[in-house]
Amino acid sequence: MTTSENKETLFPIGENASPDYFTGHVTIRNLVTGDDQLNTVVGNVVFEAGARNNWHRHPGGQILIATAGMGYYQEKGQPRQLLHKGDVVCILPGVVHWHGATGNSAFTHIAINPNTHKGLVEWLERVTDEEYLGA
Amino acid sequence: MTTSENKETLFPIGENASPDYFTGHVTIRNLVTGDDQLNTVVGNVVFEAGARNNWHRHPGGQILIATAGMGYYQEKGQPRQLLHKGDVVCILPGVVHWHGATGNSAFTHIAINPNTHKGLVEWLERVTDEEYLGA
Repeated sequence: MTTSENKETLFPIGENASPDYFTGHVTIRNLVTGDDQLNTVVGNVVFEAGARNNWHRHPGGQILIATAGMGYYQEKGQPRQLLHKGDVVCILPGVVHWHGATGNSAFTHIAINPNTHKGLVEWLERVTDEEYLGA
Repeated sequence: MTTSENKETLFPIGENASPDYFTGHVTIRNLVTGDDQLNTVVGNVVFEAGARNNWHRHPGGQILIATAGMGYYQEKGQPRQLLHKGDVVCILPGVVHWHGATGNSAFTHIAINPNTHKGLVEWLERVTDEEYLGA
């Protein structure tokens, strides 16, 4: 399933994401690397089934656009939300959250990080299997 | 061709764009309407074959992500560039430009407008047929 999902994506596969901040296999392709005029970083992220990032927050906020497969998004203290192709998630500055693929499907999203003058990301603890499974 | 291209898009078709600022049939679906924390507006724009916007500029800049079909992007004083699915265009603040579909294909892009506290768009004159054709 991962292979067929990846074929649907708009962009070539990127670099492997750091295992320090991600659980499972994740690739990130930089689309816009940021400058002080656009003040924005954009990347395409592909999560294999079961993969996700650590809990984290963005000082300038983040916008996710789901483009293939099925994934999860969860804010601290809230239930996880199922994401499908075409879903858009607005994450306000400082909100602690994680995102990733479901257990049975790969998941691809575009990640837009605006207001990069405020900082890009602050990584927190790993998402446990219990948290991932919505326990 | 327009119909098949539209089926490939990630989002439902949006509202008709204003004929004051667009030539030909164009629809815009708002994905992120903007607030003072994310400071960013995102929309999905579908141009039918031959359709384009007026010359314009963005005080906060703009990022385009081509997702279906084939289109053009032109900055004032530069040749027009052909855009395909997966192409990303970074438009710095104040740069006068237009974008739209080619004459034979519909074109869909995601438009990201960061730094909205500086303003969203300043519309200028219509793109003439001669300009559109790259004369």
